[in-house]
Amino acid sequence: MSSNFNLDSYLQERQQEVEIALDQSIEVIYPEKIYESMRYSLMAGGKRLRPILCLATCELLGGTTAIAMPTACALEMIHTMSLIHDDLPCMDNDDFRRGKPTNHKVYGEDIAVLAGDALLAYAFEMVTKTPEVPAPRVLQVVTKLAQAVGAAGLVGGQVVDLESEGKPDVTEATLTFIHTHKTGALLEASVLSGAILAGAEPEDLARLARYAQNIGLAFQIVDDILDITATQEQLGKTAGKDLQAQKATYPSLWGLEASRHKAESLVISAQNEVLPWGEKGAALRAIAGYITSRTH
Amino acid sequence: MSSNFNLDSYLQERQQEVEIALDQSIEVIYPEKIYESMRYSLMAGGKRLRPILCLATCELLGGTTAIAMPTACALEMIHTMSLIHDDLPCMDNDDFRRGKPTNHKVYGEDIAVLAGDALLAYAFEMVTKTPEVPAPRVLQVVTKLAQAVGAAGLVGGQVVDLESEGKPDVTEATLTFIHTHKTGALLEASVLSGAILAGAEPEDLARLARYAQNIGLAFQIVDDILDITATQEQLGKTAGKDLQAQKATYPSLWGLEASRHKAESLVISAQNEVLPWGEKGAALRAIAGYITSRTH
Repeated sequence: MSSNFNLDSYLQERQQEVEIALDQSIEVIYPEKIYESMRYSLMAGGKRLRPILCLATCELLGGTTAIAMPTACALEMIHTMSLIHDDLPCMDNDDFRRGKPTNHKVYGEDIAVLAGDALLAYAFEMVTKTPEVPAPRVLQVVTKLAQAVGAAGLVGGQVVDLESEGKPDVTEATLTFIHTHKTGALLEASVLSGAILAGAEPEDLARLARYAQNIGLAFQIVDDILDITATQEQLGKTAGKDLQAQKATYPSLWGLEASRHKAESLVISAQNEVLPWGEKGAALRAIAGYITSRTH
Repeated sequence: MSSNFNLDSYLQERQQEVEIALDQSIEVIYPEKIYESMRYSLMAGGKRLRPILCLATCELLGGTTAIAMPTACALEMIHTMSLIHDDLPCMDNDDFRRGKPTNHKVYGEDIAVLAGDALLAYAFEMVTKTPEVPAPRVLQVVTKLAQAVGAAGLVGGQVVDLESEGKPDVTEATLTFIHTHKTGALLEASVLSGAILAGAEPEDLARLARYAQNIGLAFQIVDDILDITATQEQLGKTAGKDLQAQKATYPSLWGLEASRHKAESLVISAQNEVLPWGEKGAALRAIAGYITSRTH
């Protein structure tokens, strides 16, 4: 399906709307330090992919940006909480994220743990700030988000990821578990929550779930590929890479070429799920395409 | 008001019901470690005061135990999450709680952070498992719980507590901020969520909020008193206490006798709030009394 859809300007506009809403969502009051710490990581930039997916599916199904925005912000708060906690010394021990010192480097580990907790709690409060939407739908979104973060979602994926570190014999099944949980679950919740708020039918939800699962996995494969190719270009050799990649990745299991192929076919499957909506599905199709365009 | 109410057997029965519900709430599946870690702290005992308050107010207003139990479990999950994170080396650095090694001593700091996150997320999922209750009420409970945990509640109290450590000049206002947020907010949410689920009127909620605030503060004062008197009996002298109490406490501001007095008068105020319900309020009055009976 040909489309005059301009993804760049779409993403840019949406990103700006999300930035404004996030900026307004947390005020700095006493005790200032915790609110500043929450804002520091929440306002540190990023693609805002999860909020944008939520807004896009809500619109696809006839809902407004206004009814999806609180949930869109909640999704970014959850994502930010997971980054703050993942960066802690007891987890991935990262000092920098997006070129800035990580939350615990600026505010201390204690505040970083608490800022994550507060963002997670606040995410659920945000979702409830949707008086225009029938309460049963909002409750469905609460359930969906809670499942996406918990042991059956993001946290579960992170646990298996931590357990797999440094193990050379990680299977494809384990790798897929990690990614469908650590990244996939929240992407799927992003897509579905927008749809639920707009009053999606079960068939819509099933289609959109498959769309989300496909782009989630493609997203991760592309991340793995970029990690290697970036390193190759940088080092001009592959020697250091295997060492650095103590972690199993799709390219390490399948090779680079097959991984690229797989990512592309996942994106096409995702785009096909949105075909029944015709031109209205242009945004979701373009977002799916954007994910693999990063491989080239 | 005289009462034949038997608090001991009431608390014991309720505690058993709560233990069963908590035990059934989390199953150990793959990846086992995270579920085991969540269960380790959740099933480590304790008075289950928050769930019992939730069940008691729901019944007071004509609701059933069944409709309040998922939220009662959620309250205990939130409380447990706050204990796991508070015990971390970067926070209070406690190795033991209730005579058992703390979560991070058994499972590692990384899993302890994640177990807390997962319990918090799961708490919100639990709340939504109340199909018998009109969705708008359940949403109100979600909001109430989220506010009680976040920067405007528990987390905010913990931040000010951390900031006040080792400072000799903590004011009464600061101390009260710490306790109304760190302990009071979740106790109030426990009392109010049961009432909301039962369909409380605004006047009921206002009364019960005052009840909860009074017992919350009394609870903390008694904790402070017990901390000192226990030390005194143990050491047979007060010398070590001031050193240990780098933290400001109510007894350190007011003295022991005035603190006891204050706790008792708060409990009486709390009990008075429940008087209009007559014999039906016996459980809440007895629970309030139980709090200061610990001073003697």
